[in-house]
Amino acid sequence: MAVEQSGRRLAILTEGHTEPVTGKTASSVLRYRPEEVVALIDGTQAGRTAHELLGVGGETPIVATLAECKGANALMIGIAPSGGRIPPAWKAIILDALNQGMDVVSGLHEFISNDPAFVAAAAKSGATITDVRKNNENEVAHRLNIREECLRIHTVGQDCCVGKMLAAIELTNAMKARGHDAKFVASGQTGIMIEGDGVPIDCVVADFVNGAIEKQILAHQHHEMLFIEGQGSLAHPKYSAVTLGLLHGCAPHGMIMCYEAARPATHGMEYVPLTSLAKLVEVYEVMANLMGPSKVIGVAMNSRRLDDDQAEVEREKVRAELGLPVCDVIRHGSDELVEAVLAMRPQLVAR
Amino acid sequence: MAVEQSGRRLAILTEGHTEPVTGKTASSVLRYRPEEVVALIDGTQAGRTAHELLGVGGETPIVATLAECKGANALMIGIAPSGGRIPPAWKAIILDALNQGMDVVSGLHEFISNDPAFVAAAAKSGATITDVRKNNENEVAHRLNIREECLRIHTVGQDCCVGKMLAAIELTNAMKARGHDAKFVASGQTGIMIEGDGVPIDCVVADFVNGAIEKQILAHQHHEMLFIEGQGSLAHPKYSAVTLGLLHGCAPHGMIMCYEAARPATHGMEYVPLTSLAKLVEVYEVMANLMGPSKVIGVAMNSRRLDDDQAEVEREKVRAELGLPVCDVIRHGSDELVEAVLAMRPQLVAR
Repeated sequence: MAVEQSGRRLAILTEGHTEPVTGKTASSVLRYRPEEVVALIDGTQAGRTAHELLGVGGETPIVATLAECKGANALMIGIAPSGGRIPPAWKAIILDALNQGMDVVSGLHEFISNDPAFVAAAAKSGATITDVRKNNENEVAHRLNIREECLRIHTVGQDCCVGKMLAAIELTNAMKARGHDAKFVASGQTGIMIEGDGVPIDCVVADFVNGAIEKQILAHQHHEMLFIEGQGSLAHPKYSAVTLGLLHGCAPHGMIMCYEAARPATHGMEYVPLTSLAKLVEVYEVMANLMGPSKVIGVAMNSRRLDDDQAEVEREKVRAELGLPVCDVIRHGSDELVEAVLAMRPQLVAR
Repeated sequence: MAVEQSGRRLAILTEGHTEPVTGKTASSVLRYRPEEVVALIDGTQAGRTAHELLGVGGETPIVATLAECKGANALMIGIAPSGGRIPPAWKAIILDALNQGMDVVSGLHEFISNDPAFVAAAAKSGATITDVRKNNENEVAHRLNIREECLRIHTVGQDCCVGKMLAAIELTNAMKARGHDAKFVASGQTGIMIEGDGVPIDCVVADFVNGAIEKQILAHQHHEMLFIEGQGSLAHPKYSAVTLGLLHGCAPHGMIMCYEAARPATHGMEYVPLTSLAKLVEVYEVMANLMGPSKVIGVAMNSRRLDDDQAEVEREKVRAELGLPVCDVIRHGSDELVEAVLAMRPQLVAR
């Protein structure tokens, strides 16, 4: 999956969801590609700024209508709801954009390009429709021709929406800043929208999940190191199939455990308690080691619910409990995790 | 997925693959629905009988051409190759069948109904095309409204093609023979062809794998007990995503571990060693217990590579090693496993 990014000026639709969790596509694009974003569209929050609601995006305005997004040439769907359907109220806005010749980029499971009205509007105006999750992956994994000298680090998690993509991107960028040849391997719609390539793994036919991420590894293993975005959790009742396919398909040398501090229960399933981090370290290592030697080498803590003091207490608690480096890559920077990754390389050479 | 079965008289295409592993669709339909099978089509084995090559199906003839399948009104594709493509040489036979008005039933990943030539031929002759793997599953799992009094037993395995479907069907039939209200829940194309319903889980979009099998559980939990067909293995490099989605989506109370004695390596990946049964018992229990209390309660040994004496030695060895009942459900019957399943019910009531 490749997404055209040059010359893009985005209006991002987040109607009723301009908040960090459901609106994570919007907040992530604002964080990593802010120069492309003209405005967010959310009639319930018009007049406010992206920074006020999402903590990123600075003065990027929130407006009520598409007409107010002056200069935008593309509409991006900025939410990723469970199940991935197009909210019915948004259909008129999408149609309006296509009629005006604005390209539409969507990461929903329900494809824009499957609706004849949208396709007809795009054909008439010359707009393009990019359904980031649309794919035709049809290869099983083979576990052949893998270059073991390319270090593979996989961000895994306790739950959905805890910061696996963010940790992988931050580590990639930190490694690049230190002069390393690092590449972010996106496995979700938001990551693909940011990186411009990757595989929408949760939308691949089940038999080909392991193979689809293996194909990404084969395509990018000429780099020195890959940071492969994880999805869901091995303990997630809805998405564990996706998580294990990713884990086995990329067969990481090292894993970064991602979680959100003070999250009370499974995201979107408040009746499902979270599995403890200590148990999950065991579970991920047991499963990863079925493919090859692998261990959890650090923890990326998402501390957005905590203040600085609380975050420090939590960080020390988890460090002591797991005996691993712990940091919030946004609050603390990623240095501790960078060191943990770099420490893996001699072992790799010795394998 | 539902498959029409009444009045069906099948020609089964197994060209070049009339053997138990790749031809498992053929051999399984012959085992459980022999009265429907007119002949197998395999020019490389014409003149022999099904029993000689597959060990089932008695005197069912193997013929060279479709024209020799007198009285057949449907053509079934009898193989399930890795990747699931239509072998190019078979296209003429499929087209010939459709032109004659014979229905076509296929479990391949590559859909017969996606080829305009096949669709046109069927439309002209009035034949139907049933792609058993075609599905539109689009619901995530919820873990709500599950009737815990319905006993859920899941057949899991060391590898592909070891007898997980067979064990589930044999246990279902043995329970029915004892007067229990048991139902086989098919999760693969062959199981669906035999049972007439189920879900082709390996062809479901990854996000909906757990949900698709949960939907089957919700649909059938009015029965006393369900035997849910497993797929692949948690240690399989290609298919582990499918396996975990099934395991978590059906959240079994008990698991039957299935393996083939004396198999030298992973099926179709001879460079991948098999994970030991003892390790796999640990792995399946760790993963199943993330959803609820569950344990491996017995072992279904596929001893087709062994003679009676060897099978007895192997059975005793595995019994001693794992401390579990062990039987080959074909060679020994399933009584030991039936007892192990029935022994679970008091615990269930006490939960």
